[in-house]
Amino acid sequence: MKAEIIAVGSELLTPDRLDTNSLFLTEELNGIGIEVVRKTVVGDDRDLLGEAFRDALNRVPLVIASGGLGPTEDDLTRETVADLLGRKLCRNDAILHYIEARFRSMGREMPAVNVRQAMVPEGGEILENPRGTAPGLWIEDSGHSIVLLPGPPRELKPLFREQVLPRLERRISGVRMHHREIRVTGLGESHVEQRILPIYSRYPEVHTTILAAPGETQIHLRLWTDDAQHAKETLDGIVRSFEIALTDRIFSEDGRSLEEVVAEELTLRNATISAAESCTGGLLAQRLTSIAGSSSYFLGGVVCYSNELKTTWADVPAEMILAKGAVSTEVAIALAEGIRRRVGSTLGVGITGIAGPGGGSEEKPVGTVHVAVSFAGGVKERGARFPGDRESIRWQASQMALDVVRVHFLYSGRNAGGQNAGKSSSKRA
Amino acid sequence: MKAEIIAVGSELLTPDRLDTNSLFLTEELNGIGIEVVRKTVVGDDRDLLGEAFRDALNRVPLVIASGGLGPTEDDLTRETVADLLGRKLCRNDAILHYIEARFRSMGREMPAVNVRQAMVPEGGEILENPRGTAPGLWIEDSGHSIVLLPGPPRELKPLFREQVLPRLERRISGVRMHHREIRVTGLGESHVEQRILPIYSRYPEVHTTILAAPGETQIHLRLWTDDAQHAKETLDGIVRSFEIALTDRIFSEDGRSLEEVVAEELTLRNATISAAESCTGGLLAQRLTSIAGSSSYFLGGVVCYSNELKTTWADVPAEMILAKGAVSTEVAIALAEGIRRRVGSTLGVGITGIAGPGGGSEEKPVGTVHVAVSFAGGVKERGARFPGDRESIRWQASQMALDVVRVHFLYSGRNAGGQNAGKSSSKRA
Repeated sequence: MKAEIIAVGSELLTPDRLDTNSLFLTEELNGIGIEVVRKTVVGDDRDLLGEAFRDALNRVPLVIASGGLGPTEDDLTRETVADLLGRKLCRNDAILHYIEARFRSMGREMPAVNVRQAMVPEGGEILENPRGTAPGLWIEDSGHSIVLLPGPPRELKPLFREQVLPRLERRISGVRMHHREIRVTGLGESHVEQRILPIYSRYPEVHTTILAAPGETQIHLRLWTDDAQHAKETLDGIVRSFEIALTDRIFSEDGRSLEEVVAEELTLRNATISAAESCTGGLLAQRLTSIAGSSSYFLGGVVCYSNELKTTWADVPAEMILAKGAVSTEVAIALAEGIRRRVGSTLGVGITGIAGPGGGSEEKPVGTVHVAVSFAGGVKERGARFPGDRESIRWQASQMALDVVRVHFLYSGRNAGGQNAGKSSSKRA
Repeated sequence: MKAEIIAVGSELLTPDRLDTNSLFLTEELNGIGIEVVRKTVVGDDRDLLGEAFRDALNRVPLVIASGGLGPTEDDLTRETVADLLGRKLCRNDAILHYIEARFRSMGREMPAVNVRQAMVPEGGEILENPRGTAPGLWIEDSGHSIVLLPGPPRELKPLFREQVLPRLERRISGVRMHHREIRVTGLGESHVEQRILPIYSRYPEVHTTILAAPGETQIHLRLWTDDAQHAKETLDGIVRSFEIALTDRIFSEDGRSLEEVVAEELTLRNATISAAESCTGGLLAQRLTSIAGSSSYFLGGVVCYSNELKTTWADVPAEMILAKGAVSTEVAIALAEGIRRRVGSTLGVGITGIAGPGGGSEEKPVGTVHVAVSFAGGVKERGARFPGDRESIRWQASQMALDVVRVHFLYSGRNAGGQNAGKSSSKRA
C-alpha cells in the first residue's frame, strides 16, 4: 500500500521551519508495510491546498495530512477537503460540547472562532484528540482514505498511534517492509557502487539505496513482502555477499555509528582509550564521549594545537617536529604513544593534519591527515588526503581514527584488547 | 515571482532523512523577493519524478531541484528532466575531464559510473561545482527555468550563491525581503517573547518569528518592501528596542554563532585561550577550533574525564575533589586556573557537570553544570541545571562557557583582554 503525506501551513514554507511530523508518520507507516511515495508542503491557500489533495488522491489510496485544523481563518484543511469531495460541513455538537468543556476547565469561555473546529465533512469519522481542541478526521471516498491530523507533534503523535494505526492495521494484511542498513567507511560512494552493483542488481525486488555522508557510505536495502521468512533469507543473502565484496570496510549492519561500534568493542574488552588531537581539535574526544557511560572507557584526551603542547602533553620530540613537520606519520605515532603512556590507557590515538582553509603547501596540501593508534604490542597508522572543507576534513579525520581502532580490534581477537585493561583501570581515580 | 522546490531522493522519504536544503534555498529566494509556494519530496523513481517536475512547471515559472545528480543508477534527475523536455543528453567532455582530474588529484582513478555526471541535456547551461563531481544545470524551457542542484549542502549552498543567485537577480526587480536575525543566549523562548512582545506588536508589517534552539533563542524579523530605506529604518528601530529589552543577552545581530563571536573577540584583542573540559568531552575545544585560523587564539585543551587527570593535567587538588565533588564551582574554577597556568594562555576555561543519563544524585541531578573562566585579574564562574538529554546538556554547557567568555570581554573594554597576550603568544612554538 502506498501513501502520501501533505503538511499544511505557510510557516512550513519559510526558512525557519521544517515539517518534522512526516518523519514520525513515515516510520509508523513503514512499520506496517505502507510506503510513503511523496511528501508535499503547501501553504494556507485554498486553491493550492485543494490541488495538492486532488493530485495525491489521483496517485495513491491513502493521504495523510497534518495541520490546518486550527480555529483561525487561515486554517483551511477541513473546508478544502469537504469542497473537493463535494460534501457538506456539518456542526458536530458532541465535539462542540467537548471544546466548550475544555475551555471551561481552563477557566475561560470558548472564543466564537473555535466553533469551526466542530465542523465535520458529511460521513467523516471523528478521531478524538484529548490533548488539543481540534479532533482529527478520517474520511473515506471512492476507495480512498483521507486522514486529517492536527499539526502540533504532541497532539499528532499519540492521536496517530491510538486511533489511526489500529484502523490502518485492520485494512492491510500481510505486506511489511523489511529493512537493512549497512554502513561502510574508507570507500567512496562510487567505489561501493562498483563493488556491489553486480550483487544487488540480481535482486530486482529489493530496493537498494546508496547514500554518501562525510567519511562514510550507507547502503539501505528495503524489501516489501508478506513473507517474512523469504525477506530474511533474501536480505541475509545479500548482506553476506556485500560482506565478501566490501570486506572489512563494513563497520555496522544495525544502524550503529562508528563511535558506538568502537565504544562497544572497548567495553566488551574492558579496554580504555585516550587521544592526542591536533587538527580535529577535540572532535574525536567529543564523539567518544557522546555516548552514555563513556567514562568507563574514555580516560582523557588533549588537544595540542601548538607544537610546544605536542611536546609538553604527549612527549613528541621537538626535533622530530622540526625534521618531519607537525603533520607527519612520525608525529601521529608519537602523539599516540605519548598520550597512551601518559594516561595509562589500553589504547592511545594520535591525529595530526591540515584542516584548512589555510596552512596547506604543495607537499602537504589542505586535507592531509595522519592518524595512529598505539597499543601494548605496537602501533598502527594510516594517512589520507581528504577532499572537502574544514568541517568535512575534520570529520573524516576523526572517522579514520575511529576506523583504525575498529580494525585493530577486528584483527586482534576478542581477548587481545584487554591485556593491560586491568592496569589502566586501576589507574583511574 | 513564485517558485517550487523539489527534493529528490528515496532516502528523503525514509524516517532517517529530512530535506534541509529547502530551508537555505527558501531563505535565499525570499531574499530576492521570490516566494516558495510548494515543496515536494519525491523518490528516485522515473515516473514519479517526471510527474513532480511536470506538475510544478504547470504551476510556477521557476523550479529548483536538489539531488539525484550522483553517479549511480538511482540518480535519475538529469535523465528524467531531459526526457520530460524532449531533449537529448549529450556527454560534455569539459566536465568529464574535470571529474577525471578531481579523482586523479586524490590519487584515484575515476570509476566508470561517474561518466553519467558529465551528461548534459541539450541546451542546458552548466553550473560549475568546484566542491564536488556533479555540476549543477540550468535549463530554460518555454518561459520556465529549471535549476538542478547537487544534493550535498556543502556543494549546493556555494553553488547556489555563486551561480544561481546572480542569474535570478538579473531577471527580477522590485520587492525584496529585508531580514534581521538576533541571537540570544541564557533566556528561554517564553521569556524572550514576554520582553519583546510589546515592541514587535507595534510593527504589524514586520513578520516576527521566535525560535528555540538548544542553548539559544533566535528572533527573525522579515519585512517585504521595495523601499530599502524604509526597511532599514524600521528594522534598525526594532533592533534598538530589542537591545534595551534584552540587554547583554543578545550575542549576535548578524547571524554569527557564539563561537564565532568569541573567536573574533579573541583575535581583536590578540588574546589566547585554553580549556579543561570534563562533561563536554572536547565539545568546547571542537567548537573553538571549528573556525578557520583558530590556531592564532586556541593554544590547547585537555579533556580530563577521570578525577586523576583533573589533578595531573590541571592541578585540581585531589582533596578539593574529595571535599566538594568533581561537579562543583570550586573544581570548575580550579580547572580554569590550572589549564591557564599550564598553557600560558590569556584565558582558561573550566567545565564540569553531569551530562547523564546516569551519574545524577538528589543534590546534583543530571544537567548540573559549572563553568569558570580564569584571566589575569581573577575568575568568573556560572552554574546551571539544564534540561534535556545528554547531547543537549553538553551543548548548553559549552554554550554557557562561551557566553561567560563573551560577557567577560563585554565588560572589560577592548584593551583589557590582551594584557598578557604578548607573554602567552611568545610561549607558542
